[in-house]
Amino acid sequence: MKDRYEELKKKLAEIHDVHMARSILSWDQHTKMPPKAGEVRAEQLGTLDRIAHELFIDDDIGALLEELRPYEESHDYDSDEASLLRVTRREYAKATRVPSDLRAELTRAGAIALAAWVEARQKSDFAIFLPYLRRNVELQREYVACFPKAENDYDVLLDDFDEGMKTTEVRAVFDELKTELIPLIAEITERADTVDNACLTGHFPIDKQRAFALEVLEQLGYDHESWRLDPTIHPFAMSAATTDIRLTTRYEEGDMNSLMAAIHEFGHGFYEAGIDPRLERTPLSQVTSMSLHESQSRMWENLVGRSLPFWKHFYPKLQAAYPGQFDDVELDEFYRAINKVEPSLIRIEADEATYNLHIILRFELEQEILDGSLDLADLPEAWNARMTEYMGVDVPDDAHGVLQDVHWSGGAIGYFPTYSLGNVISVQLWDQVREAIPDLDQQFERGEFGELSSWLRENLHRNGRKFTSKETLERLVGGGIDSGPYLRYLKDKLGGIYGIRAETGAAV
Amino acid sequence: MKDRYEELKKKLAEIHDVHMARSILSWDQHTKMPPKAGEVRAEQLGTLDRIAHELFIDDDIGALLEELRPYEESHDYDSDEASLLRVTRREYAKATRVPSDLRAELTRAGAIALAAWVEARQKSDFAIFLPYLRRNVELQREYVACFPKAENDYDVLLDDFDEGMKTTEVRAVFDELKTELIPLIAEITERADTVDNACLTGHFPIDKQRAFALEVLEQLGYDHESWRLDPTIHPFAMSAATTDIRLTTRYEEGDMNSLMAAIHEFGHGFYEAGIDPRLERTPLSQVTSMSLHESQSRMWENLVGRSLPFWKHFYPKLQAAYPGQFDDVELDEFYRAINKVEPSLIRIEADEATYNLHIILRFELEQEILDGSLDLADLPEAWNARMTEYMGVDVPDDAHGVLQDVHWSGGAIGYFPTYSLGNVISVQLWDQVREAIPDLDQQFERGEFGELSSWLRENLHRNGRKFTSKETLERLVGGGIDSGPYLRYLKDKLGGIYGIRAETGAAV
Repeated sequence: MKDRYEELKKKLAEIHDVHMARSILSWDQHTKMPPKAGEVRAEQLGTLDRIAHELFIDDDIGALLEELRPYEESHDYDSDEASLLRVTRREYAKATRVPSDLRAELTRAGAIALAAWVEARQKSDFAIFLPYLRRNVELQREYVACFPKAENDYDVLLDDFDEGMKTTEVRAVFDELKTELIPLIAEITERADTVDNACLTGHFPIDKQRAFALEVLEQLGYDHESWRLDPTIHPFAMSAATTDIRLTTRYEEGDMNSLMAAIHEFGHGFYEAGIDPRLERTPLSQVTSMSLHESQSRMWENLVGRSLPFWKHFYPKLQAAYPGQFDDVELDEFYRAINKVEPSLIRIEADEATYNLHIILRFELEQEILDGSLDLADLPEAWNARMTEYMGVDVPDDAHGVLQDVHWSGGAIGYFPTYSLGNVISVQLWDQVREAIPDLDQQFERGEFGELSSWLRENLHRNGRKFTSKETLERLVGGGIDSGPYLRYLKDKLGGIYGIRAETGAAV
Repeated sequence: MKDRYEELKKKLAEIHDVHMARSILSWDQHTKMPPKAGEVRAEQLGTLDRIAHELFIDDDIGALLEELRPYEESHDYDSDEASLLRVTRREYAKATRVPSDLRAELTRAGAIALAAWVEARQKSDFAIFLPYLRRNVELQREYVACFPKAENDYDVLLDDFDEGMKTTEVRAVFDELKTELIPLIAEITERADTVDNACLTGHFPIDKQRAFALEVLEQLGYDHESWRLDPTIHPFAMSAATTDIRLTTRYEEGDMNSLMAAIHEFGHGFYEAGIDPRLERTPLSQVTSMSLHESQSRMWENLVGRSLPFWKHFYPKLQAAYPGQFDDVELDEFYRAINKVEPSLIRIEADEATYNLHIILRFELEQEILDGSLDLADLPEAWNARMTEYMGVDVPDDAHGVLQDVHWSGGAIGYFPTYSLGNVISVQLWDQVREAIPDLDQQFERGEFGELSSWLRENLHRNGRKFTSKETLERLVGGGIDSGPYLRYLKDKLGGIYGIRAETGAAV
């Protein structure tokens, strides 16, 4: 039985290698590839996906999984063996529903659409992207049709990013966020003058931004022997092994937003770097879900990187890095500036509160796109209308509207909600962290992040994909997803900054 | 029949995609990958090679190749169809002899040895590399054993780099080179003072080296939409499509050798970029042989990049790029400096004449390594002894001796000879170029390289792998490989620089 298990593991290791090779090609495509190579790269990515898919849905793997049922049962639920078999069986049941041609075409079309999106975004012209988006959406519908009819078609797509998550559950959480956040943001907007963030614009040379980002990341746990940091249009993190972690960020001379993006991506990278090396080259050497993934990136970005204790340590270094820029800016003023709430156009530059409205907008539009109630040609108009409705801002052009995100170009529908679910989960976990490490703030003030890192590795990262989001939450917080802690945290923090009483939203 | 041909083409396209993905992973490994990822990368590369191999040796491909024999015969020898079938059939006959496990292990062991080589070279300690080299050589012997007994075991390895080339043929060419070059170099060494190359050392900031290299390459045909240039330890060129050409070079602050390495790699890249796009994603979308590949890199590096007309155009730009460095150096003096012949330790920095002795040394050692007459533990000693014998130089340490080249770490034995074969072929081709373009020198002086490029594309590059080296030479020069033109060229050029009469080698 052990031999059969090893045989399965060997097959899965090769499939994992192909997935990781695909990740490198995709990373390369977004960071290094000469632009004209896009078309051939699309074929290469499609081929790798097809091969990984065909190797995986092979009958031999199905037979091994069946044969190994007693082996799974003879091992603890938490063991590597039982977990690998459980997770693989689930994936196998899904994958065998999808024809190889469709699998390859999803990838190929996405890679081709990426090039069109880059051009459309540069020219701020949605029409360039439209036919490619149509193709992506068609393919997503074909994909959905491979699965048994769900309560919502969207459930099928969500499941790929957060297993077992349902549209109705997401909607419930998002409705709670909307109910609380829209009035809170409106109230803050009235008091916009309370916080001045002029210090965040100026001249920030790109080499200095990179050097400072690396200085911060190294203190958080970035290691040059196993990590990279590269510039890109749309920041992302990717790993091809626990020893091969690649972060990206976007630099603009006029601001220092690259830092927050880098810390966000660090959160992703640190999760993947923390997976138990014993799980390397197995299907468990991945994160559990995108929601948990985002809980980590948003935690490092916001709960760590926008906190006062963090900046008590780093602010003098920041001041030194940009002579002149922050000379007359007190720490508290800077802290308020980086936490300013301001309805704006670009999701990845949004503050903690409005960020969720950006997500909710996408979540709602994605459902309408998928069920066909919104024609894709009308997408920019719908986008712009909802931006005005939720945040009171006017979208000047497609580049600052519907074309800003890379996700739909790659065909990823159902991904966006995980960002806000991640926000919500990040604070549920944070409450546990705070309980476990009472002097967390003092540690941050001393520039120490080791105890936080250890807690995250021990309780979350090392498990890789052994447990689902739901299982993980149940284990760590003893319950399901809950917007309560997150809303309390936001109202507390922003209430403090804007002088708003937490309970009623009334001014104090 | 056409359908069956398309079916075969589709299968081959996917296999080609896997090879290209492997190339990207390998490029990444040498230029971008964090060092600790080496071990997992070895597995990934091994897996891709195994998959490509298994997909290729599939019985279906064999059956299609048989079935398509009449289809091949019904097409011209030069047609895409007949060429694809002919080349694939040849490759298939070779590949089906090699077990998949060996194929994967060759790659995996090579990738692991690469990391050991990097460390060994840094520490200049051959002992670190020795066990990995032993493993590579063992595997090469296993590989050789997959094939029918050849006149020389080494023939089997040569064949992978230059199809049909035999050890005895190479030896004949190399013996001619040795006979002529050893006394020529000795004579030049006596007149070492004739040429002063002090102007080539100094302070050359790396960003300026890169900018100047790009300025030159762009004029030769480098295009930012399809090409890249990255730093690495050991320069190489790699392509993953005719629109995805990646050059590398090595920068040292103290010299400007990076430029010649970049021009050399440009020659490789320009060959691969020039393959007919119609052949993209087919087995014909490769160069014919490493000898022809090197004929192109050596042509651009030496026949173009070390010529007086080339520098008539570029020298003022070089002077402007490094203010002060060349103020008191006349063009003619600079030209003599970059062509100085000087026995030295490092192959890739060697002049045109001694370069071949570096190669001949490796060619001879490789045969002794393969047949076991030289124990690997004694390799450094043998290396050093032969360096003294051929060039009169003492090797101070392994980093400047046996550890200098990357090739053996990747398991590539049989590759080195192609460099000198490339030298020889480059001048055979050059004579044709000169005949076709009588005012070539005048064009270079004006910074025009278009007509040369067109000639090369039309007569060589566009064909990709349709014809073997031998066929190509027969078509272009009406004969086989011949050291005569190359030796005449060298004696003429160096005779001029050093004041030596070409015919007799006596001083004039």
